[in-house]
Amino acid sequence: MPAADWILTNATIVTMDDEGRIVEDGAVAVQGGALVAVGPAAEVRSSFTAANVHDCRGRLLIPGLVNAHTHAPMTLLRGLADDLRLDVWLLGYMMPVEREFVSADFCRLGTLLACAEMIRSGTTCFADMYYHEEVVAKATAEVGLRALCSQTVVKFPSPDAASYEDSLAASRDFISRWKSHPLIVPSVAPHAPYTCTAEILQDCARLAVEFDVPLHTHLAETLQEVEQWREDYDMPVIPWVKKQGLFDAKVLAAHCVHIDDGEIHSLQHAGAGVAHNPSSNLKLASGFAPVVAMLEAGLNVGIGTDGPASNNDLDMFEEMRLASFIAKAVTGDPTALPARQAFAMATRLGARALHMADKIGSLEVGKRADLAVVDLDDLHARPHFGRSPDAVYSRLVYTGKAHDVTDVMVDGRWLMRERSLMTLDVAPLLEAAGEYARRIDIFLVKREGSVLNKLIAIGGAEQEESYEVQVKLRLQDSAPALARLRGPDFEILRTAHYQEYDTYFLFDDPAQGRLRYREDEFVDDEGTVSNVRYRLTLTGPAREREYEHSVLLSRSRFIAPATHSLRFYREYFSPQGELQVNKDRRRWLIRFRDQEFFVNLDTIVSQGFDRAYLEVKSRTWSRSDAEVKAGLILDMLRLLGLEQAEPVADEYPDLAMAAEGRTRPEP
Amino acid sequence: MPAADWILTNATIVTMDDEGRIVEDGAVAVQGGALVAVGPAAEVRSSFTAANVHDCRGRLLIPGLVNAHTHAPMTLLRGLADDLRLDVWLLGYMMPVEREFVSADFCRLGTLLACAEMIRSGTTCFADMYYHEEVVAKATAEVGLRALCSQTVVKFPSPDAASYEDSLAASRDFISRWKSHPLIVPSVAPHAPYTCTAEILQDCARLAVEFDVPLHTHLAETLQEVEQWREDYDMPVIPWVKKQGLFDAKVLAAHCVHIDDGEIHSLQHAGAGVAHNPSSNLKLASGFAPVVAMLEAGLNVGIGTDGPASNNDLDMFEEMRLASFIAKAVTGDPTALPARQAFAMATRLGARALHMADKIGSLEVGKRADLAVVDLDDLHARPHFGRSPDAVYSRLVYTGKAHDVTDVMVDGRWLMRERSLMTLDVAPLLEAAGEYARRIDIFLVKREGSVLNKLIAIGGAEQEESYEVQVKLRLQDSAPALARLRGPDFEILRTAHYQEYDTYFLFDDPAQGRLRYREDEFVDDEGTVSNVRYRLTLTGPAREREYEHSVLLSRSRFIAPATHSLRFYREYFSPQGELQVNKDRRRWLIRFRDQEFFVNLDTIVSQGFDRAYLEVKSRTWSRSDAEVKAGLILDMLRLLGLEQAEPVADEYPDLAMAAEGRTRPEP
Repeated sequence: MPAADWILTNATIVTMDDEGRIVEDGAVAVQGGALVAVGPAAEVRSSFTAANVHDCRGRLLIPGLVNAHTHAPMTLLRGLADDLRLDVWLLGYMMPVEREFVSADFCRLGTLLACAEMIRSGTTCFADMYYHEEVVAKATAEVGLRALCSQTVVKFPSPDAASYEDSLAASRDFISRWKSHPLIVPSVAPHAPYTCTAEILQDCARLAVEFDVPLHTHLAETLQEVEQWREDYDMPVIPWVKKQGLFDAKVLAAHCVHIDDGEIHSLQHAGAGVAHNPSSNLKLASGFAPVVAMLEAGLNVGIGTDGPASNNDLDMFEEMRLASFIAKAVTGDPTALPARQAFAMATRLGARALHMADKIGSLEVGKRADLAVVDLDDLHARPHFGRSPDAVYSRLVYTGKAHDVTDVMVDGRWLMRERSLMTLDVAPLLEAAGEYARRIDIFLVKREGSVLNKLIAIGGAEQEESYEVQVKLRLQDSAPALARLRGPDFEILRTAHYQEYDTYFLFDDPAQGRLRYREDEFVDDEGTVSNVRYRLTLTGPAREREYEHSVLLSRSRFIAPATHSLRFYREYFSPQGELQVNKDRRRWLIRFRDQEFFVNLDTIVSQGFDRAYLEVKSRTWSRSDAEVKAGLILDMLRLLGLEQAEPVADEYPDLAMAAEGRTRPEP
Repeated sequence: MPAADWILTNATIVTMDDEGRIVEDGAVAVQGGALVAVGPAAEVRSSFTAANVHDCRGRLLIPGLVNAHTHAPMTLLRGLADDLRLDVWLLGYMMPVEREFVSADFCRLGTLLACAEMIRSGTTCFADMYYHEEVVAKATAEVGLRALCSQTVVKFPSPDAASYEDSLAASRDFISRWKSHPLIVPSVAPHAPYTCTAEILQDCARLAVEFDVPLHTHLAETLQEVEQWREDYDMPVIPWVKKQGLFDAKVLAAHCVHIDDGEIHSLQHAGAGVAHNPSSNLKLASGFAPVVAMLEAGLNVGIGTDGPASNNDLDMFEEMRLASFIAKAVTGDPTALPARQAFAMATRLGARALHMADKIGSLEVGKRADLAVVDLDDLHARPHFGRSPDAVYSRLVYTGKAHDVTDVMVDGRWLMRERSLMTLDVAPLLEAAGEYARRIDIFLVKREGSVLNKLIAIGGAEQEESYEVQVKLRLQDSAPALARLRGPDFEILRTAHYQEYDTYFLFDDPAQGRLRYREDEFVDDEGTVSNVRYRLTLTGPAREREYEHSVLLSRSRFIAPATHSLRFYREYFSPQGELQVNKDRRRWLIRFRDQEFFVNLDTIVSQGFDRAYLEVKSRTWSRSDAEVKAGLILDMLRLLGLEQAEPVADEYPDLAMAAEGRTRPEP
């Protein structure tokens, strides 16, 4: 009789083979990491001798679950920030923290913890996408799990690369060295169409084709992405990436929430796998993926947890249940996505989605011995009805919990026995994770306490000159002064005309300064708006304030392009109050005695306070320079005939607040 | 110093009081089943002595969870039938099994198991609605859980009452005897508007008001219910039940999936509580309840698991997470229903929904000591971030699992310590539950094997006379025969004209017979359809078949009103094939030599076979009578001038199959 390394016996085997065979009183034999027999226990035990026998009495033996999409190292960011909009969550929290903390050490620790959690919940293979992916691969292989490890490529600098060319080179290197690993399938992950360029997608596809490895990406996760694509390219996301040759590669596409029937057909035709992420799609309010339509079209749709920062765990039992529940509610059909199909998504379909079905996804002779033992004999899963052949799937999907998994084997190696992890010592990992959390807390608390730090955290902010010289006058009639401005005393370098819509975010703590969100509409000579610019300006409180008539201020000022919505900034900065000031501004850049000044003629269109003002302004890094300019401004006012005009010390938001009868922030 | 029975110390206390206080290093003191102190450990321990101290180091102390709607005894039906439509599930499985098996013993066992599962998952109070509710109350009180126990009242006979008057009397009796129980609040549960009459709702409301106890009911669970109400009463469900005086009582309304803003306002104005059941609403595809709108309107919305037959468990951690997730996805707003609010729904809002907020729902001095200790220090909930005050709610709702609950106390009594149940021995209960499952399996297998048993199981079927005499002739021209029928040899007792639309369900096993779903449209003298009747007829295979020309058949025939849709019957009976035969039928009931016969003139409007037939038929319980009639038919044919007409032995579905060239069922 041939010898096996292990026989697992007395199990109810849920094979997930093509016939959907369920073997009562079944056994499997494992030899060299592969399944060499699957069948009735009596038959298997009379065909193989085995050095070791594992008794599964009263338990289910299932194919190890396949987590079709995650970001394992983000386990260290679990619960960092919840109940936020996607952009606030991603741009305001995840990315700043990643920029600051993500390192090889971070990725190794996060991966080890993720592996521990996945083993405990019956997952034997996962599709990962993150930075430092070789570190992820190494940690995973050490622990003994199987994974598709996809090195992220994005167009901007990332925590592990200064440029996308570096990421691509690192991906090539990683793939070539790990190509034949028994547990790891290395691959490349152009992050998403909106974080890549067409060229990056093309390069990644070529790389994946060259090495015949999968390509892992996010596609059509949010409605916003798809609408952007329709606007920019007159087509949705799937045909556009197809045009870039993405489907020349074996694609694993995460999410696919907002795709139509044609796109489903395209994905199916391309042999692409899809990773459906129910918790993440709900928690981030991305929407409801058309899972039933995808399955009906014959697409290989697996189930993923997504990263633990948007889930907040790696529990495939929850995801299976959710996939089924949501499909029923969305289609209005309680027979949709039955338990049996949800379990298939988490096993055989998931394996196909990862392009790894030759090795895993079912318990069949010839496949690798990746499996889990599940005890559904506990209280919450009882009683058991035997009438329907699908009852076992119903039990797994509708009542099974992560904690019901007792034993896990991958590639013939035990990773957990009787709920004890065999290849990991978790305690020191948790301690190290706690240390990261402590440091991240400090980083964020410091940042949260400072509007400036929050502004810097989202990127693009630049400091402006720290001295500001300015005078503001209330005007009844601007015509005489403007006539003199055009006279011989001044050289006009540039003129412009804007409509300015300013929203001031106000903070109780005056030390925070004021944050202004400005929409500048450029008005051309015909009076039509030709361009719009969005900017954020954070102005600190003045440290110095001098002169009566002309004013010299020393204060910090940061300026940044406002690439997101006012709504985003409002939620991200959480001001205590808000104020709106709209004005028409004609602006002249002039030269006067070899110094440059801006002259603004502002007509306030908000209600409640005097309407026309003239400002003369200049900025500089130098105090002595500022003092010279302050002196010049007095001469300028004389030449403009404005020496008797009423000076106004307050700035526009102060004037607006005074007009509204309030002195402090109001929500 | 005053003495306490217990001090629970070193906990992070999530009080859920009005200020949402979270006490780090906190303690509570319990005396006489009530909380006598809640605060910093040092303070509490310096104010009270205690005979017993429970150390909660590293753990959370939370108010016990409130399961706002369930049917505890249905724990015994968990997993019995899944992935089915509501009507097939309810009418085809739940109700027939309940009719057969629900007894006081069943309810006691199911309740004990449900209590075990709820204690293990941190639930300390539940709102129940079932039959034999006094048995439920008694079992719950024995175990030591708190519950709102609502005796079901329905218009039809139920497993515990022959009539609704009996249920009402039993409810009154139950309420009067349990009114002052320390753990149980007895109440009455008119099941739903569609299972009650206006009078029942009125009587129940009066009963609840008389004893000042809550009234528990299902409202607006499905769109079908609301549409029915709009059709029948020209208003949705909530205003209709209000008209019946339902809101004179303190109402707990389960589901409220399909209600509009006006109805939300009505519920709020009436002080009604709502039980939101996320898993059940998804799994049965009932829809998405407008939870965010309800909460914004100030309604007290709790969270319920519903019965374990539609969930399939009693895990409030899952329900909290789902409530939050779904609200986000449905509103498209990831900030909707944040973790903190979901946890409030499962505690303080749930207590209010049950009209029990004076006793439970938060950890505050003066409330009862109903609490749970939760260990979220395990792998799947780490690391912990401390920056946001809401992080603890996020941890509870987004990563907490039922298994994380370690200790549970109700009314000052420990029901679980270190995951060991203190008041229940589960093993014999599980064994007894297994015995029920075995018996139910046998009952259903027997029934599933027989179309007749399935027909009987859904009610209303009656057996018809077992002998059938009939002759069928193919006619070219029916006029001469009809002229003779109106002649002196025959007495016409009744005439009728129908359009008949027959759907035959065909089964591979000929012993099952054929099931016919017939729509009879009555056509009046003006040729307009005046009435429609839906009937099911199950005809067994003929046991005897005699005579060449006239035919005598002996076979079973069951007839039942078809009160559900064709779609329901199709899913419920799962035929292997189906066949459609539509015909125009003119029918005469005639007397001939003191015997009554039906004469049918049928014009088949389905395609593919001869169109006009004349049938003469009669049914009887007596074989000798049948033989007499068979003889008379030959005389009749002669008098009608049809002795040369071509007799047809096949029945319509056989003719149709032959015409379509098929001999066996086709899907």
